[in-house]
Amino acid sequence: MLSFESDYIEGAHPEVLQKLVETNLEKLSGYGCDRYCESAKEKIRQACECPKAQVQLLVGGTQTNAIVIGSMLRNFEGVMAAETGHVSLHEAGAIENTGHKVLQIPGHDGKMDAGELRVYLESFYGDENHEHMVFPGMVYISHPTEYGTLYTKQELSVLSGICREYKIPLFLDGARLGYGLMSYETDVTLPDMAKYCDVFYIGGTKVGALCGEAVVFTKQNMPEHFVTTVKQRGALLAKGRLLGVQFDALFTDNLYLRISRHAIDMAEVLKRAFREKGYSFHIDSPTNQQFVVLENKNMERLKELVGFCFWEKVDEEHTAVRFATSWGTRQEDIEKLREIL
Amino acid sequence: MLSFESDYIEGAHPEVLQKLVETNLEKLSGYGCDRYCESAKEKIRQACECPKAQVQLLVGGTQTNAIVIGSMLRNFEGVMAAETGHVSLHEAGAIENTGHKVLQIPGHDGKMDAGELRVYLESFYGDENHEHMVFPGMVYISHPTEYGTLYTKQELSVLSGICREYKIPLFLDGARLGYGLMSYETDVTLPDMAKYCDVFYIGGTKVGALCGEAVVFTKQNMPEHFVTTVKQRGALLAKGRLLGVQFDALFTDNLYLRISRHAIDMAEVLKRAFREKGYSFHIDSPTNQQFVVLENKNMERLKELVGFCFWEKVDEEHTAVRFATSWGTRQEDIEKLREIL
Amino acid sequence: MLSFESDYIEGAHPEVLQKLVETNLEKLSGYGCDRYCESAKEKIRQACECPKAQVQLLVGGTQTNAIVIGSMLRNFEGVMAAETGHVSLHEAGAIENTGHKVLQIPGHDGKMDAGELRVYLESFYGDENHEHMVFPGMVYISHPTEYGTLYTKQELSVLSGICREYKIPLFLDGARLGYGLMSYETDVTLPDMAKYCDVFYIGGTKVGALCGEAVVFTKQNMPEHFVTTVKQRGALLAKGRLLGVQFDALFTDNLYLRISRHAIDMAEVLKRAFREKGYSFHIDSPTNQQFVVLENKNMERLKELVGFCFWEKVDEEHTAVRFATSWGTRQEDIEKLREIL
Amino acid sequence: MLSFESDYIEGAHPEVLQKLVETNLEKLSGYGCDRYCESAKEKIRQACECPKAQVQLLVGGTQTNAIVIGSMLRNFEGVMAAETGHVSLHEAGAIENTGHKVLQIPGHDGKMDAGELRVYLESFYGDENHEHMVFPGMVYISHPTEYGTLYTKQELSVLSGICREYKIPLFLDGARLGYGLMSYETDVTLPDMAKYCDVFYIGGTKVGALCGEAVVFTKQNMPEHFVTTVKQRGALLAKGRLLGVQFDALFTDNLYLRISRHAIDMAEVLKRAFREKGYSFHIDSPTNQQFVVLENKNMERLKELVGFCFWEKVDEEHTAVRFATSWGTRQEDIEKLREIL
Repeated sequence: MLSFESDYIEGAHPEVLQKLVETNLEKLSGYGCDRYCESAKEKIRQACECPKAQVQLLVGGTQTNAIVIGSMLRNFEGVMAAETGHVSLHEAGAIENTGHKVLQIPGHDGKMDAGELRVYLESFYGDENHEHMVFPGMVYISHPTEYGTLYTKQELSVLSGICREYKIPLFLDGARLGYGLMSYETDVTLPDMAKYCDVFYIGGTKVGALCGEAVVFTKQNMPEHFVTTVKQRGALLAKGRLLGVQFDALFTDNLYLRISRHAIDMAEVLKRAFREKGYSFHIDSPTNQQFVVLENKNMERLKELVGFCFWEKVDEEHTAVRFATSWGTRQEDIEKLREIL
Repeated sequence: MLSFESDYIEGAHPEVLQKLVETNLEKLSGYGCDRYCESAKEKIRQACECPKAQVQLLVGGTQTNAIVIGSMLRNFEGVMAAETGHVSLHEAGAIENTGHKVLQIPGHDGKMDAGELRVYLESFYGDENHEHMVFPGMVYISHPTEYGTLYTKQELSVLSGICREYKIPLFLDGARLGYGLMSYETDVTLPDMAKYCDVFYIGGTKVGALCGEAVVFTKQNMPEHFVTTVKQRGALLAKGRLLGVQFDALFTDNLYLRISRHAIDMAEVLKRAFREKGYSFHIDSPTNQQFVVLENKNMERLKELVGFCFWEKVDEEHTAVRFATSWGTRQEDIEKLREIL
Repeated sequence: MLSFESDYIEGAHPEVLQKLVETNLEKLSGYGCDRYCESAKEKIRQACECPKAQVQLLVGGTQTNAIVIGSMLRNFEGVMAAETGHVSLHEAGAIENTGHKVLQIPGHDGKMDAGELRVYLESFYGDENHEHMVFPGMVYISHPTEYGTLYTKQELSVLSGICREYKIPLFLDGARLGYGLMSYETDVTLPDMAKYCDVFYIGGTKVGALCGEAVVFTKQNMPEHFVTTVKQRGALLAKGRLLGVQFDALFTDNLYLRISRHAIDMAEVLKRAFREKGYSFHIDSPTNQQFVVLENKNMERLKELVGFCFWEKVDEEHTAVRFATSWGTRQEDIEKLREIL
Repeated sequence: MLSFESDYIEGAHPEVLQKLVETNLEKLSGYGCDRYCESAKEKIRQACECPKAQVQLLVGGTQTNAIVIGSMLRNFEGVMAAETGHVSLHEAGAIENTGHKVLQIPGHDGKMDAGELRVYLESFYGDENHEHMVFPGMVYISHPTEYGTLYTKQELSVLSGICREYKIPLFLDGARLGYGLMSYETDVTLPDMAKYCDVFYIGGTKVGALCGEAVVFTKQNMPEHFVTTVKQRGALLAKGRLLGVQFDALFTDNLYLRISRHAIDMAEVLKRAFREKGYSFHIDSPTNQQFVVLENKNMERLKELVGFCFWEKVDEEHTAVRFATSWGTRQEDIEKLREIL
């Protein structure tokens, strides 16, 4: 059966796995103090053109969100996020579990609007006294968003400016960052990330690794004794090499971007296939997640031949579903899909 | 340089890694719902002779301790542990971070004494009213302990009996469980674990896996919606296969116990080497961690040729250090060590 | 200057204070184990016609919300509340500080709509798997709401029914309960509270006491060792008598309801005064909080002569403000207000 | 029956209560923004000879400990306390509930030894890497201690010096501070408190108030937006006047120290009575709590005539019990006790 359910249905990209095999019997220090972690961090700093960046490798996305947010907020602060943000909805209360509120503002195809952010902040710090309310202490955005959409460089710049004005960090969830950077329609680069965000992460789990997210603190702002916090939150691997080796491979010879580009190329082929067959899209996504509107009857039939993911009801007779491509998607599978369509 | 620093200096056992390679391109469901996770869980149930056991695969030991303890305790309860227990000392406050106190009682070479446990509980529930104190809500032990020592079957049985009497669960941290089960001096089997403990885990990270701990709830007592808790604590891997495939390999053809036995065999050879050379032991450990007393001057010299781990000062002129063996230890390396000694 | 800012601008009702004076030198047990606490609890049980109710006296409203919600929810659950609910907005993140999310649903003049509640729950437990989301574990409503509005008996009955169907408790915040019970427009009695709610509280702070809220668990459902939780959250007064004596006074000779009725009578006089002078109301409130729409220019002038509370902007030229009455409001002050208007 | 169970068996000192009565009908702002709170804070600053001190009035001791510790520690830090400290044992896990570990060091009749504190800190920051352990982030002492003992000015000075050296705050729990300041055997004054401690509190509950503790931040180190934290933890009274009026009374005409002195005078009379009758003391306490050793048989008989408090078993036949005096203890009651003895 064809599978487009998600971008984490396969293991690691073969070059990543190969590196794990090659280094397997080397005897290395534990807890992220090995040479592969060092090398991976250095390569990430270079790719970000941010030589002073502080990098920490973590295991998964929800874990990363909870640790970054929980350790950067002060106890009277919450994190602002679009109501469709991953931290708002799909992390089983991980942020609240750290004691902090997610302050939701509207989402627009997954994106936060800078104007609405400014209104919120101006109103909070306006005439009235809000000391019985949670202070806005950080802005969380995802890029690509949960809807596959992207911020432009201009939009990031404005969000970043507002955050600096209010002295709160801008945190970007890059669980699928590669697919954003390699989109045909983006003007945002990895160095732009480092420039506009106070902290962001480069997703490995969904972009070629077995697991792993690389958090980048760009302004010498990694919380003090961050490794202790990582340990306390159960996120410090004894065999830290597992993360180091994988990110070292991903940032060697541009692998991270190359495989992301493949997924984007495949998404474009997929898109064309749907368009040609007269399907419409729920959201106009320039990345590896494509949201297609299906008639319910059609959906049931398709389900038996192709794996995809329920997204949301459109109306009584139509449903939006997600098709995802990844580094592992093969063009021939899309051809088969086209035939089925 | 020779390396005996720990049991996590290498990657995965080759058979485990091989399985990851073989299955790498299979398209599988995420979040632990794949067939390898199912197979691993079933094999673990069989190895435990506990067909109704509920198994959850997690990533690391501190994470596992925090999630199991945090989700099983009620808000007014704490966990009892030996003062040398991993949860008491070396997890950066992970248990307290879940809102619960670690109620420390004395440790004896890392072990909890059943008599002292009983005295504590009798005293707590005795004449006086202790409602301004933290209630003892769980007993935590490690096996092997942090000092490499083991409980006998009789000792486990008594601890288990006390816990049942007071209706609190017995939780066993088996981060190095294989090395305990394969010790020459133990009478405790994996089915004994399932019999005496309410919940325990089978450590993978230190026994052949890249990462991974298999938590076993033995009495139909897995907390409700445990997967949601695992997600909330940032411990649910999108590519759950990483854990499933590894534990499936470890529990195929007895691999877990075979490689543990190798580590024990090597520990015995190591012990003999030290004994022959007139060294004494800080603790009498029947498992893969050996605690040797070195003269400080000697220690400095040795350090340049062999990797080992500082443990604690014995007196002004002597230091206890740890040598650990693992599945990856080669007899020839111990021979080289003997020559150096 | 005239003062209608809130219902907590004065100390205690004189009869309450008198009782504190009379009993001051009696030597009593600490931590709520004195005879006045016992007597107060018994009188509350009688007033609720709920002889098996379990009553705990606490100090303040936010504290009560955090303790009740934090101790009744399981770790994977959140509390559902109207987006305007006190727990959603004005408690500085007290609920999140206990590790739980406030699941917001729309508010309608402060009230939760039973139909929308049902849709939320049906959708949550519908076709899709929501185990990556926070489970709805409790329903929080306030009565009177933050907007002074009230639920009818029929509405409470329906909400209660939905909660029982989904096996989640209905929690009613009665910080201003007396003013609800004595409204001219309500059909809800204190025994109705006990019947429909699983837990609710009778507000003292805003209804005649110096401080104090009486939590009533109506279904033998007080969390185990609740006093220990109360101690842990810093809410157990050494001199528990302070709460016992006050609630004993408030529930002697119907004082609680008598003084609440006075506030309602005064609110009606106030309402008439505004209406006669041609003012309109932002919300139609049948309780002691009245929300009047003022022209901004008018508001500035009025501010110099009368104390009231900013509520929210209506449009560029109008503002909604709150006038509150209480047991201490004198009719002559309202007469003076009428003259000023 | 005679009552010496505790120093919180009566209500408020009559002068404090009188002030509550006198001010009861004044209309005042809520949440601690009234003139009595301001006046109380100013009088406390003067009494401390610390014009820049920042004062916050809170309700009770456990609450104060949890809020001060929870808001001053960073997430990777714990608080150091004597193993007999109130935060270690008798607050039902309130500190752990804020996510922080209590790092216990030995207690000596309730006191922390500066030498042992230094050894702990030196060892923590010594050769070995302790980043998997909880960082010592604050020192907690009580004065008088839970055993009625006191630090000398010299001892406070040394503890304070160590804290400054390691850049961690010294926090002093003064739940019974008055009784310490008025002991015949102390050389420590309130200005000394302000000099040596980074934060401490002046206990009201046990020294003449119905409730209330005044926290004093002495080094411009009150955590930012502390009122929001106080609100979040459920400790902000709507009628903040309840605390303001009481502390204003306690710090008018030296009332706080005068009534403390009375309790000390009574404790000396009590002590003499026991000594004359040949009783011995479990601890040599110079404050209002006296720990007397009773034969068990004698204890049972005495219990029927006099209220006192079980402390701990001394041996099979003897028990240490506590007799407490307070502002309310009458000399004639001690005379009666002497006769009974």
